[in-house]
Amino acid sequence: MSDIFAITAADVEEAARVIAPAAVRTPLLENALLNERCGQRVLVKFEGAQHGGSFKFRGAYNRLARLNADERKAGVVAWSSGNHAQGVAFAARLLGIAATIVMPADAPAIKTANTRALGADVVAYDRFTENREEIATRLATARGAVLVPSFDDPFIMAGQGTIGLEILQQADELGARVGQILVNCGGGGMASGIATAVKARRPDMAIYAVEPEGFDDTARSLASGVRESVSPDARSICDALLSPSPGVLTFPVNRALLAGGLVVSDVSVREAMRFAFSALKLVVEPGGAAALAAMLAGLAPGAEGASVVVISGSNVDPDAYARIIAGGA
Amino acid sequence: MSDIFAITAADVEEAARVIAPAAVRTPLLENALLNERCGQRVLVKFEGAQHGGSFKFRGAYNRLARLNADERKAGVVAWSSGNHAQGVAFAARLLGIAATIVMPADAPAIKTANTRALGADVVAYDRFTENREEIATRLATARGAVLVPSFDDPFIMAGQGTIGLEILQQADELGARVGQILVNCGGGGMASGIATAVKARRPDMAIYAVEPEGFDDTARSLASGVRESVSPDARSICDALLSPSPGVLTFPVNRALLAGGLVVSDVSVREAMRFAFSALKLVVEPGGAAALAAMLAGLAPGAEGASVVVISGSNVDPDAYARIIAGGA
Repeated sequence: MSDIFAITAADVEEAARVIAPAAVRTPLLENALLNERCGQRVLVKFEGAQHGGSFKFRGAYNRLARLNADERKAGVVAWSSGNHAQGVAFAARLLGIAATIVMPADAPAIKTANTRALGADVVAYDRFTENREEIATRLATARGAVLVPSFDDPFIMAGQGTIGLEILQQADELGARVGQILVNCGGGGMASGIATAVKARRPDMAIYAVEPEGFDDTARSLASGVRESVSPDARSICDALLSPSPGVLTFPVNRALLAGGLVVSDVSVREAMRFAFSALKLVVEPGGAAALAAMLAGLAPGAEGASVVVISGSNVDPDAYARIIAGGA
Repeated sequence: MSDIFAITAADVEEAARVIAPAAVRTPLLENALLNERCGQRVLVKFEGAQHGGSFKFRGAYNRLARLNADERKAGVVAWSSGNHAQGVAFAARLLGIAATIVMPADAPAIKTANTRALGADVVAYDRFTENREEIATRLATARGAVLVPSFDDPFIMAGQGTIGLEILQQADELGARVGQILVNCGGGGMASGIATAVKARRPDMAIYAVEPEGFDDTARSLASGVRESVSPDARSICDALLSPSPGVLTFPVNRALLAGGLVVSDVSVREAMRFAFSALKLVVEPGGAAALAAMLAGLAPGAEGASVVVISGSNVDPDAYARIIAGGA
């Protein structure tokens, strides 16, 4: 049965060894106000503390570290709304590899600026009229460069899965037994990696993908059993979670291993960002706050033991953040 | 010689045992952009993750946990610009003790609101015309309540010192040897506690008190050898660090153990808050960012090994924070 999956738990464990010298072991935090608000023990895995300000460094480094000398010389090409861009750029810089990133013209300015500051070439495209995959593939072919997908790749999935291994280790250190994990979900790379790692050790764990309204393709796909797509008219402030459909490689894993999908509104995402500001004292970007929003709204069915919320990224423009924490849209 | 000091390293170790069941072991974080910017390894002790959003819970809990049954029934009174207020209120709530807090009328609204939300009575006073110590002493006497000073108390000093023990333990876990520690300084309670704990184990450690311009009473006192005072006209955005002079109990410890005092401008404090937002992804209040500002400005002389910066608190009004991260005053 496992041969139909792109990755195994052993791949995630290997990824953990590969990224260990380079990645940040991000903290698993507990907050009394969050516990009180949720009426249960909640642990927060804070991937904003990862290189590049989101979990994406894990997968990117795991992918780039496997390139051979010729591939490294030719460089890499990726497309990304911004967090994968920074993850790839950061990993590429550490490994001395040239990186070109195709990014939406309307990506948060901080994401584009940080990607450039990390030494990558940024190529802009229109998210509503152009196909980023085609642009990136064309660039990669022209340069003989390796394409680094943002989620539909076994090394990327396994790299993101290292979050799951750390959650289990750190919960042990805190004396907590985890019953459920809430994971923000765009293409499903992080969810599939975490689920692969965690369910191998804890088959009873309930893992939920959390998506913004209008981009609930994984939730609907989990319900229907086939890969569903979002409407081209859908909009959300969660710029990191706007992928149009579950991945070809990630979805079979998520279909087999996830407990279900949860859906949150932009309003509740903003509320979660404000809670993170006022109670957790953590900066969280909209797409990074979806799982926290689901937890605060009581959407997760609950489980024996502690709940873990993955805060997956913290790259948000100062002006947008200032508006949101001051109570605006 | 040690008999002239209000606390010993053993008092801090005892405090660590007392607060262990209740306090958060806050994370010691490392960030590649911070290391790069400073040209050395820097570790950040993030006390914003402590109960009440600042380090103050440690000392407050260590003090309140020592009260006998009669004292607990009579309740406690404290004065505070806001962080000690929340620390005392949080500890009092955990221990089932009534708390009354005398706070400046111009304290950040979030600090007053959070203190009330934790169940404490808040009594407002005018910071420029009234004496908070007199008001609090009068209230405590009238009620037979115990006065809980914000820094000049052996249990408070020892409680804050537990930060130093954690820094040494967590740096060991990270494989780092620490050469210098930068600590924000108001009345000097945290600096004296950390110095007492750390210098007993690492006599070679350089520990610096960091203060805002105009409130450099500890820096000037360390230089002159006697307790100096600030000008009544002094103003700073660092509301947590505005005490008028070093403590009677804290100063002898700091004079004996600190390497010196560093002074930062409000401009550099805002810059540090923006760096914490954009690179560390941590919410930091002005007074919590002074040591980080000193580190970013290169004010610390440098030492063999890693530098530790204590981010001591994160209680800042959303509107004020929004203005600052958007680049304003």
